[in-house]
Amino acid sequence: MVDRSGIKKPFYRDVVKGVSNVTLYNFSPGPAMLPSIVMKRAQAEFRDYAGLGASIIEISHRSPAFLNLLDECIARFKELTNLPANYRVIFIPGGARMLFSAVPLNLMGRKPAQRALYSDSGEFAKQAIEEAQRYGEVQVIASSRDDDYRGVPAIASADLDPEASYLHVTSNNTVYGTAYPELPLTGSLPLVVDATSDWLSRPLDFSQTGIVYGGLQKNLGPSGLALVVVRDDLLDSSSPLTPLMLSFRYHVDNNSLGNTINTFAVYMFKLVLDWLAAEGGIPAMAAQNQQKSKLIYDIIDASPFYEGCAHSHSRSHVNVTFRMQDTKLEAKFLKEAEANGLFALQGHRFVGGLRASLYNGMPLAGAQALAEFMKGFAQRHS
Amino acid sequence: MVDRSGIKKPFYRDVVKGVSNVTLYNFSPGPAMLPSIVMKRAQAEFRDYAGLGASIIEISHRSPAFLNLLDECIARFKELTNLPANYRVIFIPGGARMLFSAVPLNLMGRKPAQRALYSDSGEFAKQAIEEAQRYGEVQVIASSRDDDYRGVPAIASADLDPEASYLHVTSNNTVYGTAYPELPLTGSLPLVVDATSDWLSRPLDFSQTGIVYGGLQKNLGPSGLALVVVRDDLLDSSSPLTPLMLSFRYHVDNNSLGNTINTFAVYMFKLVLDWLAAEGGIPAMAAQNQQKSKLIYDIIDASPFYEGCAHSHSRSHVNVTFRMQDTKLEAKFLKEAEANGLFALQGHRFVGGLRASLYNGMPLAGAQALAEFMKGFAQRHS
Repeated sequence: MVDRSGIKKPFYRDVVKGVSNVTLYNFSPGPAMLPSIVMKRAQAEFRDYAGLGASIIEISHRSPAFLNLLDECIARFKELTNLPANYRVIFIPGGARMLFSAVPLNLMGRKPAQRALYSDSGEFAKQAIEEAQRYGEVQVIASSRDDDYRGVPAIASADLDPEASYLHVTSNNTVYGTAYPELPLTGSLPLVVDATSDWLSRPLDFSQTGIVYGGLQKNLGPSGLALVVVRDDLLDSSSPLTPLMLSFRYHVDNNSLGNTINTFAVYMFKLVLDWLAAEGGIPAMAAQNQQKSKLIYDIIDASPFYEGCAHSHSRSHVNVTFRMQDTKLEAKFLKEAEANGLFALQGHRFVGGLRASLYNGMPLAGAQALAEFMKGFAQRHS
Repeated sequence: MVDRSGIKKPFYRDVVKGVSNVTLYNFSPGPAMLPSIVMKRAQAEFRDYAGLGASIIEISHRSPAFLNLLDECIARFKELTNLPANYRVIFIPGGARMLFSAVPLNLMGRKPAQRALYSDSGEFAKQAIEEAQRYGEVQVIASSRDDDYRGVPAIASADLDPEASYLHVTSNNTVYGTAYPELPLTGSLPLVVDATSDWLSRPLDFSQTGIVYGGLQKNLGPSGLALVVVRDDLLDSSSPLTPLMLSFRYHVDNNSLGNTINTFAVYMFKLVLDWLAAEGGIPAMAAQNQQKSKLIYDIIDASPFYEGCAHSHSRSHVNVTFRMQDTKLEAKFLKEAEANGLFALQGHRFVGGLRASLYNGMPLAGAQALAEFMKGFAQRHS
């Protein structure tokens, strides 16, 4: 264990002390801020869920109250996504990285060649590739590695070998701030999408996918639980070596209750979905995420003081990555931003720089406050 | 999805309406009630952890505030358990059932025979056995199946084959209300213990174990995260097919942060450990759990109206299972108990009957209230 006793903790309220009426905005890439109305409700009923006199975290996952919650949560998800009837919604412990193993374990055996196609669009795509190599042959049909992952690599139709078991893509790359503007059409080859960082932040045509999966901890809830949307015909190709808790078929047959599910995460997810529906659903989220990210990209594009990291055609609407022309100013930027109530803007530890994560839970006012700050900072330091 | 819209939810507060000053006690087998002081604190700081102006569930698992919390949590656990220096403490997504796969994947390869020994002491032991059979040869050296799991099966020293990779036991069987009074001494054969239902509820000599694991959701916190205590020499025998997120070595090398950990569960676990230390540590818990369970067992033993399910020598001090001589009275018992503020006393769905779970979080007053109710119910219906 590393001794971190000497590390100064960032007590945000202390940092902004003396500045009156500052609203704090948390640009964390995940776990990330959730809608404040959701957080208030969760706090209010934390020790007494639905009049039970017990917390949602203190009751059995098989109690009628929790079973109702789980059913309502899945029904709400299906309604918001217009999910076709031949798709199942299950929960698997962990996050996307658990699925990096579960996907090949469940799907690699679909075809005799035991070969899967992957797009290498960034750090997590790379990790998914490495993990899939344990369970079969991996063919990387597209990569933007040589371009430092500044864009998403184009996927050529000619490479979509129907004898492969599936094609895996990462729809949004949190580290690099890139995203596929459109997912590839793969015909009979099942498309598998790691959607951890853009779940329900923009429209996604599930009918063109085989599996969509991801952790909840960015747009949808707290960390510790993965959501998996899987098409019926992909449930029965799993390797006999698949751990039971990673078997899609098992979780479908047991309504995700074969083990003691992370009840708190399901509860928070349900609250987030209810909020999302009340706000106008996925189209409303997408429009607001466009608006928020445009505020920041417009400032980045307005002067060479800031430099966007991602190519324009691949820009993410939820993770805006940028640097300063004078990189020495970045530490000052982070410090002054914190003093103005704008937190967690440092880039991923693998790439450095700056990053503003603008998931569904970030209100427009947060993006506006950041845009104002960026404008002022550029004026003061140009 | 099953349609449960017609199910009447148990709104506990409605059930006890009209009875003034009733304190509610929740005997759920897990997820289970947590100490009320812990729940109050978690609620109070739910939207503002450590002055951050953000919730513990909204900050990065790599933020200094969370890293400190994780380190303090592990340090507290080591202190409370007097953990020898050659053991590592890691977290793995899910619960015990995820470990049913992870244990053989990590350990089966220790010896050329790829054979593991298991004790079959109940439902979850049986599931662990079935799962291990995917990854090697399983030899069941003790079973109480023919006795309907009313006791824990004795383990003969002669059966502890040193050419086996490990011996697996379930220290406490939640479904049947049985427990090993003492864990077997296994010498050089690593002892692997599923301690999900009695973690820190009684003393355990970790130095006699190879691995101790379990979910947090009974004595230690919410559901969705497993704790694994593993001896240094058992980190390097894993199968190449082990999913990275189930590799003990990987989690040790990455301080359990290789994936986005369930931050909320770690936070709650830390609060529970702090409470446990303030209450006098494991010896104090053990004494109180003995006292609580004795209150119930004494009533069961006092008359033939109630019948204990477990043999006396195998009785659990955290899950007290019983039936009524007249089983038709059990539904009435549950209903009247609820009207008196005593909830979740039904037995496991596989066995029926009644069960009172008395984990660390259940105060003495809860066991006393149940004992009084049982006495009165017997008088009224004898």
